[in-house]
Amino acid sequence: MARIQNPETAAPERRAVQGQRPKPMTQHPVSAPPSVALPDPFRLYRGGVLHAARIAYESWGQLNAARDNAILLFTGLSPSAHAAASEHDPSPGWWQRMIGPGLALDTTRFFVVCVNSLGSCFGSTGPASIDPATGERYRTSFPEIAVEDIASAGWAAMQALGIERLAAVIGASLGGMSVLAFAAQFPHATRRLISISGSPAASPFAIALRSVQREAILRDPEWQGGLYAPEHPPRSGMRLARKLGTITYRSAAELGQRFGREPLTGIAGNVGLFAPRFAVEGYLEAQAERFTRLFDANCYLYLSSAMDRFDLAEHRGSFAAALREVTIEAVLIIGVESDMLFPTHEQAAIAEAFERNAVRTRFVRLASLEGHDAFLIDIPRFGDAIGAFLA
Amino acid sequence: MARIQNPETAAPERRAVQGQRPKPMTQHPVSAPPSVALPDPFRLYRGGVLHAARIAYESWGQLNAARDNAILLFTGLSPSAHAAASEHDPSPGWWQRMIGPGLALDTTRFFVVCVNSLGSCFGSTGPASIDPATGERYRTSFPEIAVEDIASAGWAAMQALGIERLAAVIGASLGGMSVLAFAAQFPHATRRLISISGSPAASPFAIALRSVQREAILRDPEWQGGLYAPEHPPRSGMRLARKLGTITYRSAAELGQRFGREPLTGIAGNVGLFAPRFAVEGYLEAQAERFTRLFDANCYLYLSSAMDRFDLAEHRGSFAAALREVTIEAVLIIGVESDMLFPTHEQAAIAEAFERNAVRTRFVRLASLEGHDAFLIDIPRFGDAIGAFLA
Repeated sequence: MARIQNPETAAPERRAVQGQRPKPMTQHPVSAPPSVALPDPFRLYRGGVLHAARIAYESWGQLNAARDNAILLFTGLSPSAHAAASEHDPSPGWWQRMIGPGLALDTTRFFVVCVNSLGSCFGSTGPASIDPATGERYRTSFPEIAVEDIASAGWAAMQALGIERLAAVIGASLGGMSVLAFAAQFPHATRRLISISGSPAASPFAIALRSVQREAILRDPEWQGGLYAPEHPPRSGMRLARKLGTITYRSAAELGQRFGREPLTGIAGNVGLFAPRFAVEGYLEAQAERFTRLFDANCYLYLSSAMDRFDLAEHRGSFAAALREVTIEAVLIIGVESDMLFPTHEQAAIAEAFERNAVRTRFVRLASLEGHDAFLIDIPRFGDAIGAFLA
Repeated sequence: MARIQNPETAAPERRAVQGQRPKPMTQHPVSAPPSVALPDPFRLYRGGVLHAARIAYESWGQLNAARDNAILLFTGLSPSAHAAASEHDPSPGWWQRMIGPGLALDTTRFFVVCVNSLGSCFGSTGPASIDPATGERYRTSFPEIAVEDIASAGWAAMQALGIERLAAVIGASLGGMSVLAFAAQFPHATRRLISISGSPAASPFAIALRSVQREAILRDPEWQGGLYAPEHPPRSGMRLARKLGTITYRSAAELGQRFGREPLTGIAGNVGLFAPRFAVEGYLEAQAERFTRLFDANCYLYLSSAMDRFDLAEHRGSFAAALREVTIEAVLIIGVESDMLFPTHEQAAIAEAFERNAVRTRFVRLASLEGHDAFLIDIPRFGDAIGAFLA
């Protein structure tokens, strides 16, 4: 079992803040979560190699004596491992109402571990991390990251925690892709699998939308070929990328219901011919400002590109062949009817790939209004589906 | 009848090029089409005033002796009046297969006139035009343009051509909105009306998407508060805006069918971690490059904002009330099932508004795959629907 790093002795940033939670003005985690070392060297799917790489994680519940009650949770593109309040950080997490005693991911039964993706910027090694070979940030010298690497780094982190087989692996969005890459690479490593709003291969529509988001960053003069200082990120590009992302993560129907054509009010300086006029623009503005403070632009570019290149059929030639060695008790695939970015025919293709391998598969289409982001919001529907599957 | 300007004696740009078609390297029309003067002063819907304003147009077919066979065609946001080959310009137009002898807009029966929108940059007065008061380009000193102004300027142009009542008014996208603004303001001015892929009021989803497109331009340092020189436009912002626009004008299904996950080939310099990899990205690239050469950034901002603010209910309180004075023989409303930007429930609302006023209304939902842009591509379906309605 690999060394589990204590948050109190972790990164210099953590010691520097002395337990105080600073305002999130940098692109780094406000305090370093626990992390584990990856095998060194850690070889990447598309040929790169990392040294002294780490994966940050948070956990809830207790690992049982048999070490067989662990659930590995992969995140979407932007969240940290802080899926719920924990000893490490008592603030609510991004899946707060899903993880806890008696909730869908029931911490009286399961040891739930959420990992920060390899390539992200919330404690795991990524483009914003210091390259041990140079003492400088990797930035664009970071090797190419694939969804497969997110999966294998997450699995290595669980092995470092002493776990040999999972009770379940689960993820939504990029996380929903990560669990597929997990199954293709580690076909015997989990008893159950839940892929939410995922895709077996990025569609050209999703690629096009992400490509424009990346270009907004790449063309921001402040990006400086990736060499921006952390305190001077490519803010305009990040804002545009997040606004466009946010639109595609929701649905036209939800925006219509929430905002209609309500005017924007209460924004100082809202003057001029092209200033935001509508409430929906204020919503995007808030999302963009928050994200630009929290996330690193290069990390965004790496993870966004990884999603585009993901294609389950790279493993042995077809979606079904990729999964042909999987030994698993049951699979749950969830899609959302209003999801424009990962439409339900993509989840249907995932379910079909498992079914072709005679895996017991449940495919649930949810009528949530909130589009791709529904798993973050429509907790009643998602909690019911996931809780029933794990019960 | 107002003066009809002869193309041979029109704008200085036209004389300068001496009939040669230069490469489209500027944001101006390659040669000035014919144009008519608007009433001076021309009062705008939101309070501004224009002097010495003009509307550029092209026409096909002959105005009959009774002057009652004219069809007024409004365009989408970006096209010029060059809808089909004409004496003025023999190159194919943007609706080439729709306008001509025996085609849906049958030039053996109708005198078809397409106007370049007020606020655009292909011969009509807009932000890129010279302000006669200063001798400089208007740029952002141009007054705010509403869809109502596009409609009233188009109608003024027709009156300048000696037309008192139209056989039909027709338009798609922004043009589909323009015909509604036309009906609300000039309820007795046409015998028939065709609104294609339009909306009675911009949805928050469409507003959000256009808002991001505008912000891409506004945040491009080259925009310079609107004061860029024509030869140094805000190219990055325009590229991003057009790429995003293009994605929303098509459908995920069409992009899937056309491009799949085909790799991009044959692009010199396609290197680096974040360079375009997929054929769909090459398609967006071509669209963006072409548009950035042709269209003026400030004009784009003005027309895009006008679409956001359009709300038919501003006229007398509701969609139906806006149309209550309309006297018209029949109305054709067309929507496309795959249109994500102007979804068919918006065209259904238009049809309902006419029906509530006891107008004979035909509402056609087309199964075209090409999304909002289908009217430019799926000529068989659109031609059949329009031809049958006008027969």
